[in-house]
Amino acid sequence: MNEKETPNKKPRRKTAANPQNAGTRQRAVKKKAAAEAQAAETVKAPAKRGRPARNKEVKKTPVKIIPLGGLNEIGKNMTVFECSNDMFILDCGLAFPDADMPGVDIVIPDFTYVERNADKVRGIVITHGHEDHIGGLAYLLKKVNVPVYATRLTIGLIEGKLKEQGLYGKVTLNVVEPKKTVKMGCMAVEFIKVNHSIPDSVGMAIHTPAGIIVHTGDFKVDYSPIDGKIIDLARFGELGSRGVLALMADSTNAERPGYTHSERTVGESFDRLFKKGEGKRIIIATFSSNIHRVQQIINCAVRYGRKVAVFGRSMINVINTAIELGYLDVPDGVIIDIELMNRYENERIVLITTGSQGEPMSALTRMAMNDHKKVNITPMDFIIISATPIPGNEKFVTRVVNELMKSGAEVVYEAMYEVHVSGHACQEELKLMQALTKPKFFIPVHGEYKHLKKHADLAVQMGIPKENVIIAEIGNVIETDGSTMKIVSQVPSGRVLVDGLGVGDVGSIVLRDRKHLAQDGLIIIVIGIERATNEIVAGPDIISRGFVYVRESEELMDEAKAILSNTLAGCSYAELKEWNTLKGKMRDALSDYIYQKTKRSPMILPIIMET
Amino acid sequence: MNEKETPNKKPRRKTAANPQNAGTRQRAVKKKAAAEAQAAETVKAPAKRGRPARNKEVKKTPVKIIPLGGLNEIGKNMTVFECSNDMFILDCGLAFPDADMPGVDIVIPDFTYVERNADKVRGIVITHGHEDHIGGLAYLLKKVNVPVYATRLTIGLIEGKLKEQGLYGKVTLNVVEPKKTVKMGCMAVEFIKVNHSIPDSVGMAIHTPAGIIVHTGDFKVDYSPIDGKIIDLARFGELGSRGVLALMADSTNAERPGYTHSERTVGESFDRLFKKGEGKRIIIATFSSNIHRVQQIINCAVRYGRKVAVFGRSMINVINTAIELGYLDVPDGVIIDIELMNRYENERIVLITTGSQGEPMSALTRMAMNDHKKVNITPMDFIIISATPIPGNEKFVTRVVNELMKSGAEVVYEAMYEVHVSGHACQEELKLMQALTKPKFFIPVHGEYKHLKKHADLAVQMGIPKENVIIAEIGNVIETDGSTMKIVSQVPSGRVLVDGLGVGDVGSIVLRDRKHLAQDGLIIIVIGIERATNEIVAGPDIISRGFVYVRESEELMDEAKAILSNTLAGCSYAELKEWNTLKGKMRDALSDYIYQKTKRSPMILPIIMET
Repeated sequence: MNEKETPNKKPRRKTAANPQNAGTRQRAVKKKAAAEAQAAETVKAPAKRGRPARNKEVKKTPVKIIPLGGLNEIGKNMTVFECSNDMFILDCGLAFPDADMPGVDIVIPDFTYVERNADKVRGIVITHGHEDHIGGLAYLLKKVNVPVYATRLTIGLIEGKLKEQGLYGKVTLNVVEPKKTVKMGCMAVEFIKVNHSIPDSVGMAIHTPAGIIVHTGDFKVDYSPIDGKIIDLARFGELGSRGVLALMADSTNAERPGYTHSERTVGESFDRLFKKGEGKRIIIATFSSNIHRVQQIINCAVRYGRKVAVFGRSMINVINTAIELGYLDVPDGVIIDIELMNRYENERIVLITTGSQGEPMSALTRMAMNDHKKVNITPMDFIIISATPIPGNEKFVTRVVNELMKSGAEVVYEAMYEVHVSGHACQEELKLMQALTKPKFFIPVHGEYKHLKKHADLAVQMGIPKENVIIAEIGNVIETDGSTMKIVSQVPSGRVLVDGLGVGDVGSIVLRDRKHLAQDGLIIIVIGIERATNEIVAGPDIISRGFVYVRESEELMDEAKAILSNTLAGCSYAELKEWNTLKGKMRDALSDYIYQKTKRSPMILPIIMET
Repeated sequence: MNEKETPNKKPRRKTAANPQNAGTRQRAVKKKAAAEAQAAETVKAPAKRGRPARNKEVKKTPVKIIPLGGLNEIGKNMTVFECSNDMFILDCGLAFPDADMPGVDIVIPDFTYVERNADKVRGIVITHGHEDHIGGLAYLLKKVNVPVYATRLTIGLIEGKLKEQGLYGKVTLNVVEPKKTVKMGCMAVEFIKVNHSIPDSVGMAIHTPAGIIVHTGDFKVDYSPIDGKIIDLARFGELGSRGVLALMADSTNAERPGYTHSERTVGESFDRLFKKGEGKRIIIATFSSNIHRVQQIINCAVRYGRKVAVFGRSMINVINTAIELGYLDVPDGVIIDIELMNRYENERIVLITTGSQGEPMSALTRMAMNDHKKVNITPMDFIIISATPIPGNEKFVTRVVNELMKSGAEVVYEAMYEVHVSGHACQEELKLMQALTKPKFFIPVHGEYKHLKKHADLAVQMGIPKENVIIAEIGNVIETDGSTMKIVSQVPSGRVLVDGLGVGDVGSIVLRDRKHLAQDGLIIIVIGIERATNEIVAGPDIISRGFVYVRESEELMDEAKAILSNTLAGCSYAELKEWNTLKGKMRDALSDYIYQKTKRSPMILPIIMET
C-alpha cells in the first residue's frame, strides 16, 4: 500500500474512536469494533420512528451526503460522503449514452468536486462489479489515486478494467469481506452481504459521527440464491434496532409490486428448455456478469451431457475471472475451446454468448446477421435469450430475434418463458428493507425521478414522515447532524462524455452540431478572395454531404449556386471586406432558398479562402 | 365520379359476373349480388380443410397477391391484388423512421410496381383511418389518381390528409358501408365490419375468379364495443362455410396469449380514476384516432360534471371530424375553448391531449417541459397516460412521466392501471378468425418476422398444412389458381424516405453520410491552388464541426495542420496536378493522425479551390 495514500496516515479525528484500517488483499480486516463504537453513538438518536424527539437530541458533527450520479438517471452511480476533513466515495459507475448523444461511447460523472477535495479523499468503496458501479472508476483514479475497497469478485473485475486503462499495479486494491469494516477517517464503512444479479454484492452501513447511514447498493432478496448466500437481513435488522439515521435504497424496481423471483426459477426454466431443445444445439445469450446464470447453464449442460463453448469478449473475460476466483464451479472438460466445437454433435453442445441486448457488435447479433465466423444459425438451433431488453434496446433485441427466426431457429425470449429474473428488489422487498432498518430519514437512490418518487411514496406509506424523505438531485449537498437532514448547497455535477480517447471534449456544442448534421446534413460554400484587391477569385463552389442525393438534384444545386453568385455580385466593396458579414449573407441567402425548396435546414458552412 | 377513373368503364372480364360498382358518397352501394356470385364460384374449391383434394380441383384464372408493405416491418401496410388486366390496392400506409434514419420524417412504400401498371389499377380500398394504413395514400394518388373506397369516418380522415397535400377535390373518394361490395374489374371487394382502436374499421373479403381471399385489416374481437357494433363474426363464418381460399390476418399481437380486453374496461378504469382525481384537474393523453377512448373520457366528464378542453393539432382535427360525421356524441357545452379554461376550477375540468408517446413536439410533452403557453403543471394535476409506449418510444414516455412528476402532479400510466387496451387480436382471437374462415391457405400479415412466424405456427396448430402457410416478404408475387398458392416472382419494393418536401431524395448514401457525421463529426481541409502554376496559394485551412470542442483542442488542430502542410510539401508537381490523388493523400494523412490521437474517425472532406 502506498504510504501517501494510506487513509490512516491522515490526521485522525477525535470523533473516530478505534480507528481501523481495511485489510489489503493479503491482510484481511479482523476487527469491527470501530463500526460498533460508531454505531453506539447513534443509538439514542431516532427516539421513536416517525416522531423524532427533537428536544432530547444532541447535535453531532455534521455529515454530508453528495450524490454525483444515479439520481434522476439510470447508471453512473456515485455518492460522496463527507465529514469534517474526511471524504470517501461509494461506487463510481458509467452510464450508456442516450440517442441524443451520437458518437458518445460512455458517460461518466463530473469529478470536479472530488478533484477539488483530493486531499480529503480517504478511499473508494464499491458495492459490486457492474459497469454502472465500476465503469467510471479508472477515469476517477487517473485524477485522484486513492485506495479502492471491494469484495473479492468485484476487485477481480476492477483489475480487468484497470489493465485495459493501463492503471494496473498503480492503484491499491483492497479485498474486503462482508461483515468487515473499512475506516475512512472519522467514518467507517461496513460491508453487508446483499443479493443481486452478480455475486459478491454488498450494501454498506456507514458509521458516522452523526449516525448510521445504510446504503443498500443494488439489491434484491433471494431466499434461494445459487451460491447459498442469502442477503444478511439479520444485520440490517440489527442496525435498525440500534438506530439507523438514514437509508439510501435502490429504487430501480420501485414501480413493480410484489417480489422479484429467485434466480433459481431461471434454472428451472432452463431445465425445461433443455428438454425441449433436445437434439438441437442450444445457444443461450445473457449478461456476462450474471455468473449465477452462467453457473445454472453449466449445471444444465452437465446434467444433459453437453459441452459448453463461450462466445463474446466480455463473457470470456468474466467467466475466466469467476473461475479463477472460485465463483464458478465448472467440472473439468465441460468448457471447450470454440475451435473444437465442430467435433461435437449439435445435441451435445451449448453455446453461451453475449448479445442479450441485441448490441450491434455482439456475438449473438453477428450470428443472427450471418456474420459470425464460427457459428451459422440453422433450424437445428434452439436459442434462449435470458434477459429483458433494457429500455432503449427493445428494437435491437427484436431485430436479432427476427433474424434468428428467419434462419429457421427456435427462439425463446422473455415474453413467453421465465428465462430471466430481475436483480433488483420489488416493492415488497423494499418494504422489508424499510421495516428492518427503520430509518429516521430516507433518500431513494438509483433511478429516474419516477422510480425515486414511487420509492419515496412507499416509505411514507411505511410511516416515515414526508419531511424526512428527500428526493435529491445529483450535486445536492445533503447535510445531517443526526437530528435534521436537509439539502444545504450544491456542488458541480453532471455528465462527462467519453468518445474514443477523449474524455469531456465532446460537450453540448459538439453534440448540437452532430445532431444538426444528422438531421439534415451539410452544405459547404467556398469562395476565394484575393486579399489585396478584395476580389473574388474562386467560387462560389458548393459541396454537400447528407443533404440530398446530389446526382439527382443537379437543378437544385445549380440554382443554389446562382443565388450565391447573385448575392456576392450584390455585395459592395465594404461588404466583401467584412468576412463575417459576408458569410452571414451567403448563409442566409442559401438557407432561405433551401428551406423554401425542401423544407429542410442543413448546416450551412461558408468558407472564405484568402489567396 | 371522373369518367376516366371509373372502374366499371374498363373492359369487363368474362369471369366477372354481375359487375357492380361502389356507390359514391351520394350513391350508396345497394346490391351485393356480385360478391355472392363470385363467392359461389369458389364453393367447391377447398374440398376438405387441411387435405386439399387436388385432383378434383379445376384451375382458375390466377390471382396475384403482392404485398408492398407491412410484412417484416411495423407500418406502411399496402397490398396489391391483381387478376388478368385488373389491379387494386388495399391500404397505403406510412411507417415511422427508425433511429438509423436521422432527419427522415416518414417512410412510405416503393410505388414503382403500381406506377408501371397504372392503367390496370381500378381503385384503392382502405380498411381504416390509421396512419399506417392511409399515411402513404396522398403520395400514391399524386402518381396514380384512382378512386378511393373506404367507410365514412375513414374517408373523412383521408379528406383531411388530402387537404394538407393540396389534393382535395382532385381525387374521387367513395364511402362504402360495411356489408357492401366494390367492383374492381374481375374482382370484387366486400367490406366486413371489424373492431379496432378506431371506429369504422373493416376487413375485406376479396372475391376473385380463383376464390375468396379474406384480409382482416387490423382487428380485434370486442363483444362490448363503445359504438355497439361488434365485429361481423357471422359473415366471416358464412364465408368460411362457403370456402375461403386464403386468409390474410393481422399478426401484431400474435405473440400474446389470451384475448385483448374490451375497450369498455378502459372506461371502467377512467371511472375509478375520475373518483381518485377528485378535486384536481384531470389531464388525459391518448391517441387522437382512438375516438372510442375520447368518447369514454367525454362520458366520464359529463358524469362527473367536468368540462373538456382539447389540446394538440391532431386531437383537435380528429375530434372535429368525428363530431361532424356523428362518431362522437358530445352534449352541448361540454367541450370548451381552451381560452375559456381559466373560468373553471381545476376540479371542473378535463384536458384531452396528444403526446401519449412522449413525442417531443406534442402538447403533453410541452406541458411536461414547462413549455406550454396555456397549461402549467402543478400538484393539483392528475394525469393519465392512456396508451402503451410503441417500441422505440419508451424513453420519450419515461422522460415525460419524470418531468410531470417533478412538477408534483400525480401520473397514472400503463404499468399500474388498466388505462389502455390494445386494438389488435391476441392468440385466442386469431384462432377464432381461423376457425370461422377455415382458409385453405394462410398468409400472416402486419408484423415483423417474429409476429408472422408466431401467427404461422398458430395456423399450423389449427390444422392448416405447413405447406399452405406462406410467410412472405414485400415485393413477393404470391400467385394462386384456386388450387395451389406459391411465390412465383418478385417486383420492385422497399422503402421511400420522405424528408421535408423531398420524397425519395434521401437514400442510402445520404443516410450513411448523416450517420457518419453524427458519430464523429466532420473535418474540412481547404487549399487553394493556382491552376496556371500549380502552386498552393492558400491553406491548408482546417474547419471542424461536431468533432471536438475546438477552443480546447488547439494543439490537436495545429498539429493536424502541420501534418497537412508536410504532406503537401512532400507532393511532387505531378501529384499536385492530380487532384483526386491529392485529396486522397490529405485525407489519409489527417485521418491516420486523428485516429491515433483520438480513436475517432470523423468524415474528412478535402476541398481544393482553383484560383
